[in-house]
Amino acid sequence: MIQIYVTGGTFDKEYNELNGSLYFKETHLQEMLTKGRNRLDVKTDTLFMKDSLEFSDTDRIQICDACLSVNADRILITHGTDTMTLTAEYLAGQISNKTIVLTGAMIPYKFGSSDGMFNLGSALAFIQVLPPGVYISMNGKVFEAGKVRKNLERGEFEAI
Amino acid sequence: MIQIYVTGGTFDKEYNELNGSLYFKETHLQEMLTKGRNRLDVKTDTLFMKDSLEFSDTDRIQICDACLSVNADRILITHGTDTMTLTAEYLAGQISNKTIVLTGAMIPYKFGSSDGMFNLGSALAFIQVLPPGVYISMNGKVFEAGKVRKNLERGEFEAI
Amino acid sequence: MIQIYVTGGTFDKEYNELNGSLYFKETHLQEMLTKGRNRLDVKTDTLFMKDSLEFSDTDRIQICDACLSVNADRILITHGTDTMTLTAEYLAGQISNKTIVLTGAMIPYKFGSSDGMFNLGSALAFIQVLPPGVYISMNGKVFEAGKVRKNLERGEFEAI
Amino acid sequence: MIQIYVTGGTFDKEYNELNGSLYFKETHLQEMLTKGRNRLDVKTDTLFMKDSLEFSDTDRIQICDACLSVNADRILITHGTDTMTLTAEYLAGQISNKTIVLTGAMIPYKFGSSDGMFNLGSALAFIQVLPPGVYISMNGKVFEAGKVRKNLERGEFEAI
Repeated sequence: MIQIYVTGGTFDKEYNELNGSLYFKETHLQEMLTKGRNRLDVKTDTLFMKDSLEFSDTDRIQICDACLSVNADRILITHGTDTMTLTAEYLAGQISNKTIVLTGAMIPYKFGSSDGMFNLGSALAFIQVLPPGVYISMNGKVFEAGKVRKNLERGEFEAI
Repeated sequence: MIQIYVTGGTFDKEYNELNGSLYFKETHLQEMLTKGRNRLDVKTDTLFMKDSLEFSDTDRIQICDACLSVNADRILITHGTDTMTLTAEYLAGQISNKTIVLTGAMIPYKFGSSDGMFNLGSALAFIQVLPPGVYISMNGKVFEAGKVRKNLERGEFEAI
Repeated sequence: MIQIYVTGGTFDKEYNELNGSLYFKETHLQEMLTKGRNRLDVKTDTLFMKDSLEFSDTDRIQICDACLSVNADRILITHGTDTMTLTAEYLAGQISNKTIVLTGAMIPYKFGSSDGMFNLGSALAFIQVLPPGVYISMNGKVFEAGKVRKNLERGEFEAI
Repeated sequence: MIQIYVTGGTFDKEYNELNGSLYFKETHLQEMLTKGRNRLDVKTDTLFMKDSLEFSDTDRIQICDACLSVNADRILITHGTDTMTLTAEYLAGQISNKTIVLTGAMIPYKFGSSDGMFNLGSALAFIQVLPPGVYISMNGKVFEAGKVRKNLERGEFEAI
């Protein structure tokens, strides 16, 4: 069984047509899994729905506690891309016996041209075959926590 | 470097608005990789564009020859789902030193609700981490050639 | 109040992922009206769901009877494009005191790049302002019954 | 011939994946007309690309001058919904011998679930059949300038 924790991020942003802003309503994770005809045994829980630039230490502790306490060795976390590397590094310092993969999207799933489905497919694949550790799966690639940064100019993740 | 061979399949089917039929025009693989913000080093070649129910032995031999002769150890093949297991088994009998992953889609990429992006993401992930062998990646899962069948009633792949 | 009669056509075709064929399940008319934020007072009924190449005389009589008996002077009919002109001519010979507009699509609504939303918007506009008569609304244009043909080579409607 | 003037608005907003904001790049009007299989003779010019909340008097004067000087009696203006009624009223006070229709969208065209195609279809239909005057076409309806307001709570246009 794979545990999926939703924490928000661009993945799940929606357009508020009443005021023209972007906001979170509810996660589209289940809809995405259905569209992808996923047949893996997954359990999805929403921890919170936040832009990752607004994550506090408390939020990361909550994610970490959820990963530690859950009865699953393989955990996928959907996460905003801006501070994904920070959370990955924090988790890597706290957890060593589980395979944890963080992923996200550059474009909201609801906005037609999203990379979300591609990233979700990659992340769920990596999580099944990688040894214990904390990883980021973006742009078709996988990176170990602490060895990756988001290139803000290019909008992509790269090894460091 | 990952070599991608396109052979057609539902993945690439389009709707012909002049006569209401489904047909192949050209592959959408590059468009899908761009949408997924793929940053892996891939090379894409179209071997042919066919419904896999119409594959002949010659077609499978052509795929096999392409895999053997190319200077790449990791090869992704997009393929119709109906005879994907047959091609996988044939390749497994001929090639043992490369990691080959076959994938496809139940819904054409162009028809909005396709599982294609999800499957492409999964397949590109599996191909990076699995040892040499021939695999099928569908429904978020990965199967070894010879140990999988398409359940025609449910429209999904399952281990045998 | 505007009465909408659904009769099938490309508009409502879907992709059957189990056998790769196109078929009718149920109409997407209500979903399209919601997506268009339609606020007109409309009532939608499905007469049947058929490819218009398979319409019989009985089908056209049923459409005509429905138009005659309904308590509405403005009627929109969604219809396959292949025999839309025939039905329009038949209705024009039977009904003279109502504004009836037929429309359809070249690409199924469910296939992403459909002209369906555009045609539905046009048809609902024309129906509000045109005098009694039977019309076809396609390609942004409106044609009187009997003065239009479908150009099969170009896949568009043109005046004759 | 129908002249189309693009002035921006939600219609044409896009998502900037580098910073998560909404912005204008270029209009999607031509792409929308192609998708709708439009065969009307239209000419499209972009006057500017702005959120209509940021329109100045100068902007409205520019729109008005363009409408007056162009050699076309039927003019479609794509416009943000927030001040669409203001521009309509201003134009109605300056121009009386042309049929001018303003339309827009509540959801950007690029965001999948847009009402843009529906509104564009309606507006192009109304413009062909309505007598000289200035109108707003939204939600499938048409309103005369000065007799309509945007209901901000419901996100729809209504007669006053």
